Amino acid sequence: MLVDGVPHRTVWYDPADPEAVRIIDQRLLPFAFVVERLTTVDQVAEAIRDMHVRGAGCIGATAAWGMVLAAREATAGGTADRAVLEERAGRLIATRPTAANLAWAVNRQLAALSGGNGPDAWREIALRTAQEISDEDAEACRAIGRHGVQLIEAIAARKPAGQPVRILTHCNAGWLAFVDYGSATAPVYAAHDAGIPVHVWVDETRPRNQGARLTAWELGQHGVPHTLVADNAGGHLMQRGMVDLVITGADRVTRRGDVANKIGTYLKALAAHDNRVPFYVAFPSSTLDLSMDDGLREIPIEERDPGEVTEVTGAGQGGREAAVRICPASTRAANPAFDVTPARLISGWITERGIHTTPEFEPR
Amino acid sequence: MLVDGVPHRTVWYDPADPEAVRIIDQRLLPFAFVVERLTTVDQVAEAIRDMHVRGAGCIGATAAWGMVLAAREATAGGTADRAVLEERAGRLIATRPTAANLAWAVNRQLAALSGGNGPDAWREIALRTAQEISDEDAEACRAIGRHGVQLIEAIAARKPAGQPVRILTHCNAGWLAFVDYGSATAPVYAAHDAGIPVHVWVDETRPRNQGARLTAWELGQHGVPHTLVADNAGGHLMQRGMVDLVITGADRVTRRGDVANKIGTYLKALAAHDNRVPFYVAFPSSTLDLSMDDGLREIPIEERDPGEVTEVTGAGQGGREAAVRICPASTRAANPAFDVTPARLISGWITERGIHTTPEFEPR
Repeated sequence: MLVDGVPHRTVWYDPADPEAVRIIDQRLLPFAFVVERLTTVDQVAEAIRDMHVRGAGCIGATAAWGMVLAAREATAGGTADRAVLEERAGRLIATRPTAANLAWAVNRQLAALSGGNGPDAWREIALRTAQEISDEDAEACRAIGRHGVQLIEAIAARKPAGQPVRILTHCNAGWLAFVDYGSATAPVYAAHDAGIPVHVWVDETRPRNQGARLTAWELGQHGVPHTLVADNAGGHLMQRGMVDLVITGADRVTRRGDVANKIGTYLKALAAHDNRVPFYVAFPSSTLDLSMDDGLREIPIEERDPGEVTEVTGAGQGGREAAVRICPASTRAANPAFDVTPARLISGWITERGIHTTPEFEPR
Repeated sequence: MLVDGVPHRTVWYDPADPEAVRIIDQRLLPFAFVVERLTTVDQVAEAIRDMHVRGAGCIGATAAWGMVLAAREATAGGTADRAVLEERAGRLIATRPTAANLAWAVNRQLAALSGGNGPDAWREIALRTAQEISDEDAEACRAIGRHGVQLIEAIAARKPAGQPVRILTHCNAGWLAFVDYGSATAPVYAAHDAGIPVHVWVDETRPRNQGARLTAWELGQHGVPHTLVADNAGGHLMQRGMVDLVITGADRVTRRGDVANKIGTYLKALAAHDNRVPFYVAFPSSTLDLSMDDGLREIPIEERDPGEVTEVTGAGQGGREAAVRICPASTRAANPAFDVTPARLISGWITERGIHTTPEFEPR
């Protein structure tokens, strides 16, 4: 998508600099746009764990590129060392527990690399597979947009001409959360580009404010009308008939359609259900985990640093990044990063294959 | 309640300084404890509108004391000028639209003052009525504690000895929101003081963070164990069986039991309902508005400054109050301050008269 008018992906490889993978350091957005150059698996693992990159698809693609560096490290001695490769793979998978795409991408690389003999083959296979994973993620998101825009068109058709379709989203399931286009935002961008008037309610998404920092920035860069609200406001907006549709992303989706997504998604699903507002979840098949059924019992939920709750980071005096503590110094906090929305609250699941109104997913 | 071991109320009158009303400037908590001296109705109106004081009972009591200053201003010319009195009353009522206690307290003063002839009588009546309203508010909160603690005792009795009763609350319905004791927190303080182990999940309560700033501070001052969480976390905690009881306050309660309270309360009520967690609302009868029935249609909802959403205030470098902007500079925000929780989601209403499991309220 566009950044100051220039097309960008969230993670990419420049053949002219074969020892590095490049990412946008999303921790600094929207206050600074900084590209980071990663040259070791350790740096990639840190970038994922400390959320230089975040979002299901972007984590997966970054890990896939991390495996390109892993293949370099595992062949540095002149032989193709499977033990080193698997150690690096494990290190990448261990960075974050909830997003399904992470292990999926790393395991796809391991499987592909099993078919290669020797250092050159490994390096070539890892590169090709990372590029495939990136391109497929972008293409899947584009397809999600193509399918999802039909929901928006149908709502627009029932409204007086010119009245916007009002869509609420939580966290950032925009292009920054994937390689390009986004999942929840792909139908929004598709509608906007097709001239259908849309307006997005952007949940700020405490504690890390991905909505306020990333979704608001993305939508602004693309010219999509939007309004930021506190996470607490969504139920009120739905009660007042001010939301036509909710679309969120997903970090893991089980066989029965239970969805792990950013903490607070479940509350919005409850409010949508209570107010008969359609609630859709958009994700590429790489987010499916068909090995799991009951999301509430089976999906591991990451606990993050309580400091993300007790301190808020943003632009301080002079626009410089600064943090403020919002509670007494002695206050303790808890910080579960995801919750699980049970399938019964979900109107439909949008994947690259179409809109599923029952959770009948093909293996990816 | 105690502040550094010294008993305090949120608003009070010192006979040695008859021209002034004193409040705790709650905007500065928990980072500074500052008492503010108000000597004109304009200052009182500003203190309410700009939230030096906030919370249903505290707003009501502060307005009642504001009417003491109004009576002074309306008698400054040597006669008891009803037009001036009513103009001042209107100014106080107009400061904030949602809390029922505000108009209730001012109108009670106007009614009491109707029975007085001349400047001396007015000043004396206004003082006596303000003191009555303050004392009744404190006494009602104490009674709410006495009734509400029974809920906590009953839950504790079903648990293994020593396991805390885990209570979630939203915003600040603590003693800072009233004259003393609080509504939602009164049962918690009563339980803690009676030796029943309790643990409070404190919603940070964006956008103004009254939970993080005020409830966490209050509970800490009183030694009640508690953990701060993002507003998004409550549904997850309930899904995981980590919440035994939700108690919130109320800014206005209708005949049928619909409750206007801080934005986000409705989302917690939905989650409690979905997880069969009892959801109680605690308030003194002064919060009842029996002139209204359907809260969603009838209760006016205040829209506040979008800057409360786009900027977060807290302790910055060196502990100094500072603000950070959490979104792009061009991002627009909306800031509805309250939502309405329909009676169907509420397990019970705790007032100074007892625990009501059906919304059958006597006129106050």
